Amino acid sequence: MRQTMRVLIAGIDGYLGWPLALHLAARGHEVYGIDNFSRRKNVAEVGSWSAIPIPNMHRRLEVARNLLGLRIKFFHGDLRRYQDALSVLRESKPDAIVHLGEQPSAPYSMIDWKHASFTQENNVIGTLNLIWAMKETCPHAHLVKLGTMGEYGTPNMEIPEGFFEIEYRGRKDRLPFPRQAGSFYHLSKVHDSANIMLACKIWGLMSTDIMQGVVYGTRSDGIVDHRLHTRFDFDEAFGTVVNRFCTQAVTGYPLTPYGKGRQRRGFIALADSIQCLTIAVENPPGRGEYRVFNQLDEIYGINELGDMVVTAARRLGINAELGSIENPRVEMEEHFYKVDSVRLKALGFKPTRSIDEELEIMLRDLIHFKDRIRAKRHVMAPTIRWRGKVPHPLIAPPHESSGVGQETVKVISDR
Amino acid sequence: MRQTMRVLIAGIDGYLGWPLALHLAARGHEVYGIDNFSRRKNVAEVGSWSAIPIPNMHRRLEVARNLLGLRIKFFHGDLRRYQDALSVLRESKPDAIVHLGEQPSAPYSMIDWKHASFTQENNVIGTLNLIWAMKETCPHAHLVKLGTMGEYGTPNMEIPEGFFEIEYRGRKDRLPFPRQAGSFYHLSKVHDSANIMLACKIWGLMSTDIMQGVVYGTRSDGIVDHRLHTRFDFDEAFGTVVNRFCTQAVTGYPLTPYGKGRQRRGFIALADSIQCLTIAVENPPGRGEYRVFNQLDEIYGINELGDMVVTAARRLGINAELGSIENPRVEMEEHFYKVDSVRLKALGFKPTRSIDEELEIMLRDLIHFKDRIRAKRHVMAPTIRWRGKVPHPLIAPPHESSGVGQETVKVISDR
Repeated sequence: MRQTMRVLIAGIDGYLGWPLALHLAARGHEVYGIDNFSRRKNVAEVGSWSAIPIPNMHRRLEVARNLLGLRIKFFHGDLRRYQDALSVLRESKPDAIVHLGEQPSAPYSMIDWKHASFTQENNVIGTLNLIWAMKETCPHAHLVKLGTMGEYGTPNMEIPEGFFEIEYRGRKDRLPFPRQAGSFYHLSKVHDSANIMLACKIWGLMSTDIMQGVVYGTRSDGIVDHRLHTRFDFDEAFGTVVNRFCTQAVTGYPLTPYGKGRQRRGFIALADSIQCLTIAVENPPGRGEYRVFNQLDEIYGINELGDMVVTAARRLGINAELGSIENPRVEMEEHFYKVDSVRLKALGFKPTRSIDEELEIMLRDLIHFKDRIRAKRHVMAPTIRWRGKVPHPLIAPPHESSGVGQETVKVISDR
Repeated sequence: MRQTMRVLIAGIDGYLGWPLALHLAARGHEVYGIDNFSRRKNVAEVGSWSAIPIPNMHRRLEVARNLLGLRIKFFHGDLRRYQDALSVLRESKPDAIVHLGEQPSAPYSMIDWKHASFTQENNVIGTLNLIWAMKETCPHAHLVKLGTMGEYGTPNMEIPEGFFEIEYRGRKDRLPFPRQAGSFYHLSKVHDSANIMLACKIWGLMSTDIMQGVVYGTRSDGIVDHRLHTRFDFDEAFGTVVNRFCTQAVTGYPLTPYGKGRQRRGFIALADSIQCLTIAVENPPGRGEYRVFNQLDEIYGINELGDMVVTAARRLGINAELGSIENPRVEMEEHFYKVDSVRLKALGFKPTRSIDEELEIMLRDLIHFKDRIRAKRHVMAPTIRWRGKVPHPLIAPPHESSGVGQETVKVISDR
């Protein structure tokens, strides 16, 4: 029998937070959540919305309760306020805290000084408050912290899970693997990792720091009703690459790999990300232990992904095509990329999704919301550039053949 | 002929800032400064003051002007406000910015959540504002940023200057040397380093990131009048170890190495620190270059330093002695420590101070202010502990023989 745990999810209103809450609650855990709704506000600020409409938190909780019998307790609060962190921990008395409550967009953090500053303050100070409040109220709780594979950057060597044993000038040590993050957002996660590692060392807190690959998908287990769907962003700031490609495909825009499109990254389907986070929660480390999991399923090149989306779309009769666009980021476009990811598998993680199947499901889901996406089509073009924001979209309007075949796609209803 | 440069010093009111301003101005540079006087406020907050009295900034500037003919331009401002950063850069149009404007105390950052949060916000957001403002107003200026040797921690291998070439699983790369800082203050400097490295990479800024050892001393060149002295802190938060030992010696308190006292650190005399910063300013890197200098002279063990202070004191007839105290920090007390520091020497750095001579000068200077130090003696005991603040001092009151011989010390006036 699995032990029932009290789990607090910071950022419960987000893309991962909400399906994780449903999943953990369905597994019998007592789930608490905190959110300041900044994701909704920030997406609105960049002129967008979720492609898949989502109800407000009040309604979400109501549907989860009435339809699934799941009682999730929600706190409206902001981790940047220490008192909020303290209150929610005192109230929820968590065995585990899953910290997803951060500003998650690299482009958003690169808009200007204000957004860079907001991102680092929100993420770093929020996390700092959380660990001090844990020390104060629940030093034996397990902090599952969402980081990103982007913390490592793209070194010319294999990327281990957080630490590596090396020899240098004849002496050996086990050291944190050097981080070379490529945006102020990614760096905020690096800063968090370093702060949490210290807290484990000096206060005996325990933490699992998740270096997650890029998540894609519209579905997760337990989403049995359209009112339970999680958000799905497609704008240049908050939409991740596969999700953006799928919305571009269904709305007849060319897909936009950046630059040469030969960047390689780790990816994981939404349902599998939720599976991994659940494994981390249910398998805590020891007291004072700081451990790092690289959370990804497969590695793909960006053009390769684009081709997969185009192929999946064409299978559904959607005439998608790959475009080309100047890279708004400053990053290596061709590089070595090999990553260890054995620790989650050792604890039982089994990928359940094939990307081809998942892409089809996503495209079918998104077809429903084609008009919603088109209504905000101006947010799909990358205007936020690492070397300075440009005022106008760089993307071409839909090509002439766009939309051909789209209306003929048979839309399959929710599983 | 040396080229005259426009140099902005952030934190000009501090221990290093003020003597650096005098030194650079005396070398013919056009010196600007900005400060929010937080050091004075924070030292007052922990119940202390500078052992050596210092005039306010208005008076300092007046004396520098009247006595030395140096015109230093001062802005009262706070880098946490982006507009302040922007204004001071627009006004000063610097060729170089020496960024000393940070909260510099590890113990202060460990008092509680508020001080941790203040430290990281002040340091990280202040620096972030500065680099964004540089991008906006003076992308060709050279940022000389004060970091700390504490960023590296104490790995079981030699510490290179910022980066190292390594081989891992058969592949090679040049990577940032892993940082394992031991306090939220030290981590704030790690975060700064990472943010600045990115700014150089994506915007072509240039920066010298100084990993400085522990600075000690009361004197620097150009301090020809008591009204030009720099501050000298001796409290548990803002007093660095050698400086604290010297004030303990002159006031008859036992010196307090923490724990076994076998920690090893790099040290540098104040005058030599100023020399190094000047070398960095006058020898900028190339566009887009991010370089790291390890700025230290010699490495000592803490007990070894204690012994040197005791010996120097006894030479002056002061009956000092080494005490012993529980370590308030969480740190390795015995460890390997070997550090590269060749880059500054390659640019001409020649240490000008022997620690024995310098200790004697310090003790002679501090004897004058024995009563000022004793008046604040409660701040010398470490009450800030990494695992949680303790309410009472751990230090014994002056031992019976304290002060014996002190009154007989011949006090030599300022050089």
